[in-house]
Amino acid sequence: METKDLRISGSRLRKSLEEMAAIGATPGGGVQRLTLSDEDKVARDLFVKWLRELDLDVTIDDMGNIFGRRAGADNRLAPVMSGSHIDSQPKGGRFDGILGVMGPLEVLRTLHENKVETHRPIDIVDWTNEEGSRFAPAMVASGVWAGALEKEWAYNRTDINGKRFEDELIRIGYKGEIPCRQHPLHAYFEYHIEQGPILERKGKLIGAPKGILCLHWYDIYLEGTANQVGPTPMKGRNDALCAAAEMILKVNQLPTKMGGDMVATVGEIQNYPNSRNIIPDKVHFTVDIRSWDDDLAIAAWEDVRKAFEEIAGQRGCPIRIEETWRVAHSPFDERLVQRVLQSAENLGYPALHMVSGAGHDASYMNQITSTAMIFVPSIGGRSHVEVENTTWEDCEAGANVLLQCMLASANEK
Amino acid sequence: METKDLRISGSRLRKSLEEMAAIGATPGGGVQRLTLSDEDKVARDLFVKWLRELDLDVTIDDMGNIFGRRAGADNRLAPVMSGSHIDSQPKGGRFDGILGVMGPLEVLRTLHENKVETHRPIDIVDWTNEEGSRFAPAMVASGVWAGALEKEWAYNRTDINGKRFEDELIRIGYKGEIPCRQHPLHAYFEYHIEQGPILERKGKLIGAPKGILCLHWYDIYLEGTANQVGPTPMKGRNDALCAAAEMILKVNQLPTKMGGDMVATVGEIQNYPNSRNIIPDKVHFTVDIRSWDDDLAIAAWEDVRKAFEEIAGQRGCPIRIEETWRVAHSPFDERLVQRVLQSAENLGYPALHMVSGAGHDASYMNQITSTAMIFVPSIGGRSHVEVENTTWEDCEAGANVLLQCMLASANEK
Repeated sequence: METKDLRISGSRLRKSLEEMAAIGATPGGGVQRLTLSDEDKVARDLFVKWLRELDLDVTIDDMGNIFGRRAGADNRLAPVMSGSHIDSQPKGGRFDGILGVMGPLEVLRTLHENKVETHRPIDIVDWTNEEGSRFAPAMVASGVWAGALEKEWAYNRTDINGKRFEDELIRIGYKGEIPCRQHPLHAYFEYHIEQGPILERKGKLIGAPKGILCLHWYDIYLEGTANQVGPTPMKGRNDALCAAAEMILKVNQLPTKMGGDMVATVGEIQNYPNSRNIIPDKVHFTVDIRSWDDDLAIAAWEDVRKAFEEIAGQRGCPIRIEETWRVAHSPFDERLVQRVLQSAENLGYPALHMVSGAGHDASYMNQITSTAMIFVPSIGGRSHVEVENTTWEDCEAGANVLLQCMLASANEK
Repeated sequence: METKDLRISGSRLRKSLEEMAAIGATPGGGVQRLTLSDEDKVARDLFVKWLRELDLDVTIDDMGNIFGRRAGADNRLAPVMSGSHIDSQPKGGRFDGILGVMGPLEVLRTLHENKVETHRPIDIVDWTNEEGSRFAPAMVASGVWAGALEKEWAYNRTDINGKRFEDELIRIGYKGEIPCRQHPLHAYFEYHIEQGPILERKGKLIGAPKGILCLHWYDIYLEGTANQVGPTPMKGRNDALCAAAEMILKVNQLPTKMGGDMVATVGEIQNYPNSRNIIPDKVHFTVDIRSWDDDLAIAAWEDVRKAFEEIAGQRGCPIRIEETWRVAHSPFDERLVQRVLQSAENLGYPALHMVSGAGHDASYMNQITSTAMIFVPSIGGRSHVEVENTTWEDCEAGANVLLQCMLASANEK
């Protein structure tokens, strides 16, 4: 059989996903498998067992990242890597992350049972703590591996109970011997659910993001004048919550105003003293702006910042603005992106050249090697919730695309 | 000397206010004298000592209300009462409440030193827990005294540390022997800072509220769809915080739209999951509408409620509305209100016929006897804050108006 006719087993992939979904299963049909929790350990143990069944060379580094290497014909060549994360959000779904670990596992099983030898070696990986929901920030272990984050800093992250990352890593037995440090790679593929509604809306089965949107975070602090609401006439009030409400709507209107593929969101707000009969005198809210076009995102911010200052002036509410975080957009290797599209086409799957609005471990990998991602549809665009869902057929299709992409890259000289 | 020429001592009143302000004084220049706290006890002890120095008949009821009675010529007649509250907000000011206790105390001292006998007896009172900031709700002990609230229910109110009202009353030694129950009154006067900016803006010294505005409280619950902000396009979002922002601005615009003396405020908001990269899927906020015209307040609510439902529909955010509390406007006895204005005029103080936007112990007293209030200006309209302030001259002027009003009522047959 030619390798272009190889197919993964959809039923075996489903079985693996269902076994993983049982670890930390929630009554609402999702999973809670927080990083470095007991559930994470159980899932890791199962993953390692499955790797060993394929005679892979299993290594665990001192950030808890789990690698399995399948030898190639020429093991002096840089390997092709694929992986994602086993950890989940609290009350997360059954596909986010784990699909990108079970997918390449299914690819390796397929190669194994068909005794396919690739030119280059292949690495599979589970990255520790992608979600960042127990220990902030997100994507910490792939960041350390890629040399973008400091290991000691990561070790000292604490969860809300004050437990240290490193201590929890040791507790579950996954602080490995090998230093967490990048090795040369030929290519990196990450298979993931879309986490948005675009594929579903456009009737496509496979998404090939050309890269990850830029991400700009801002923090806005407003001051008003607290007074009892009854005796204080409307005229002359400095109501910080009203000022914030006007600003929130300006942020919401920004993408329409600026055009392009921008999204702009206020997700978080704190209001003080937050008492029903006192005029709010302090409000903090956040702004999240994302776009493929960094300059457009900056221009949008300049526009909305001017609007904020006008509103603050009109309402008599002094404003303080922090430009908290800016990450430039991250274009993937277009040659690999086209490989994803071509593989999908060869397999007869309608595919879409799109963008990724969310960050992934692939963001850090993209800093050090040729990278691409494969998306499959999220039903209703829902993710980070228990009802997150993707059909088994779509899971199978995406894994077949991954198989073909990995084969193509692993057979490159 | 004719009683119309009697004047209180501004310096003695100031000294009493300053001694009280030292009990629970905060570094920011305010006071923290939460009801039934150690500071409340110290202030009560001082008040009782001062009452005894005037040979008053001091009684304490089983809600901790402190009364001092000065005999009149005919003690079979119903007395004239004046008072307010010693307790304060956390980080409150030096005038809210205590001015209405030290004011009538100064009146009684003036009558005492001038050996003035009134026809009717006079009662001075400190009402327990007017603020409601330690034990909700507000004005609880005057409410029990007036028969509007249940004593056992009040006893079982708890503070945020789970301490019971009755236990704290016993702890500070102010659960008296006498049952908390109204006795017949001829008139009730409450002297208070305005807590708003109207007198200052209009250049008036004395305010005579014709009554207390109606008070309507609503609770709004919105649902949206939580999704990661990056991969979720703007079109098709159900952002509960954006819906709330539109509604908050509708509430803010309501008084202009409806006319009259209405105030409308959103003081409190909770947003979920309140994470900067997740679209809000649950928002709760409050609406407070006050007006002298109950029908106008209802019409305003019907108007804004319709707007809420439209916004909820457009944003795809299901809305649930609770009509939490409605208190009708409470008109004082206009004969007594005119007495306040006339007394101010006789004393040469510019006075204003106005309304009270805030509730007071006078609200409950107004249910059982002829009631009026005397307001003096709040600098900048500020109250419930440490910078709350009123000039000593204005404190003196208000107490002279109180003296004349009490004399007039206490000398009525």
